[in-house]
Amino acid sequence: MSTKFDANELAERCATAMFARDRASTDLGITLTEIGPGRSVMSMEIKASMANGDGVCHGGLLFSLADTAMAFASNSRNEVYVAIGAAIEFLAPGRIGEVIVAEATEEHNRGRTAAYSVALTDSSGNRVAQFLGRTYRVRGTVIEGSG
Amino acid sequence: MSTKFDANELAERCATAMFARDRASTDLGITLTEIGPGRSVMSMEIKASMANGDGVCHGGLLFSLADTAMAFASNSRNEVYVAIGAAIEFLAPGRIGEVIVAEATEEHNRGRTAAYSVALTDSSGNRVAQFLGRTYRVRGTVIEGSG
Amino acid sequence: MSTKFDANELAERCATAMFARDRASTDLGITLTEIGPGRSVMSMEIKASMANGDGVCHGGLLFSLADTAMAFASNSRNEVYVAIGAAIEFLAPGRIGEVIVAEATEEHNRGRTAAYSVALTDSSGNRVAQFLGRTYRVRGTVIEGSG
Amino acid sequence: MSTKFDANELAERCATAMFARDRASTDLGITLTEIGPGRSVMSMEIKASMANGDGVCHGGLLFSLADTAMAFASNSRNEVYVAIGAAIEFLAPGRIGEVIVAEATEEHNRGRTAAYSVALTDSSGNRVAQFLGRTYRVRGTVIEGSG
Repeated sequence: MSTKFDANELAERCATAMFARDRASTDLGITLTEIGPGRSVMSMEIKASMANGDGVCHGGLLFSLADTAMAFASNSRNEVYVAIGAAIEFLAPGRIGEVIVAEATEEHNRGRTAAYSVALTDSSGNRVAQFLGRTYRVRGTVIEGSG
Repeated sequence: MSTKFDANELAERCATAMFARDRASTDLGITLTEIGPGRSVMSMEIKASMANGDGVCHGGLLFSLADTAMAFASNSRNEVYVAIGAAIEFLAPGRIGEVIVAEATEEHNRGRTAAYSVALTDSSGNRVAQFLGRTYRVRGTVIEGSG
Repeated sequence: MSTKFDANELAERCATAMFARDRASTDLGITLTEIGPGRSVMSMEIKASMANGDGVCHGGLLFSLADTAMAFASNSRNEVYVAIGAAIEFLAPGRIGEVIVAEATEEHNRGRTAAYSVALTDSSGNRVAQFLGRTYRVRGTVIEGSG
Repeated sequence: MSTKFDANELAERCATAMFARDRASTDLGITLTEIGPGRSVMSMEIKASMANGDGVCHGGLLFSLADTAMAFASNSRNEVYVAIGAAIEFLAPGRIGEVIVAEATEEHNRGRTAAYSVALTDSSGNRVAQFLGRTYRVRGTVIEGSG
């Protein structure tokens, strides 16, 4: 079995374990499309209940999608990382009914700190938001017996 | 009727109108404690359904509370402002059952742009997160006939 | 003459015009390696005079390099854009004597707003910092007679 | 001698030691106005050499002033903290000849992490920029024999 295969399989197992205990992301309807070591692609449909007073997706829920994509990418090697900070630029409105795709890319991972860019795009290819976040490794493993 | 009274009353009316159409914030259980021109204090109880895989409040939902507090502060003068970007530092975990208070302070408001600091604190006085965001004025008024 | 060639030539001319009046970047020793529509690669050697109290490059000067790379990328189509905000994560120290390369990538450009990711890397390939910034289009052109 | 007096005196001694080895801040002409435990007020005159292509202060140098103010506030208790990330919103241009005052306020300091808001204001009281940054404690002391 190749190392690459193992790394991807480990990432998938970590993602499954994370989803099982992440009620917030589940409740938002976030789904996983792709997962690999240090990267993830996740989606969220903007429901009417996610609208803010302007009739578009609440910025905090777009942030939540990006933050979730970062968490899955950062915990994909069975080490536990927690988010310590992030910035987001809101570039275009997230309209009700749209499915927003978040693609998380690892910019850095060394020692106990990692950083991720997350691009949020709608079905027309418009960049809805761009996110930069940072995570920090703490004790423990995502799945048991594999640390 | 003093100018100060008018400004506070206008802020309250804007807040009432915003809540009536902001399903996302309502669904999160966010409530308003104080509102005035350029400032707001809002609260959110961390429910079990808000937990992420680490058993603490999903960072995106803390961001949502801060973003909502900024929106209410920024739209308190019956001009419509939308968030264009923000940064957040996660400083301490938001534990299930805690009520987090977000206090939004206006740092700048001139021309069409405004900036807000939002402090998120738990019931023990611990700073859970610190937020810096920016809004931009677009056309329209928050409540009719008062623009 | 192909459109692609024209766009690159315009970007080069804009860069030349910007350098001629950007004393701050010139004084920091920032040089241009590559320029094209919406992108740039720029470099800065960390001199002893750039050290802070910790003996490594002052974070503000790394930010300056990233901000300059964003400015050149954002003004590469002969429209004038100014930075309105940015976030940076400092990932590894910038050591004295190192040449830091900043690569600016356009994440979004639509209407009057644009966003850029900038990766700062040292000569060993270590990511020293990651930057996310936003620019806003104002009146005018970078070079005359080409607007 | 009161505890408060000691804390302020320690902050002053740390600031003196930091300035002695911070060539970058000294070269920018940054001066210290006030220092205390967890806070600082610092100033910088915008010289013609600090202008970018738009004829106003390079955003990176405004960031440098804010970052320096955070560093002095964060190292004021003789523990060594380094900046790990920051966000800045540019709100009004920093004009040549203006003296910009940066006031750093500690939002959080617990365990090994701290966060600071820094307000940058010109001589007319206009907020030029608002900064939110984070520092992390590493080994060592700022001044010897006092750790």
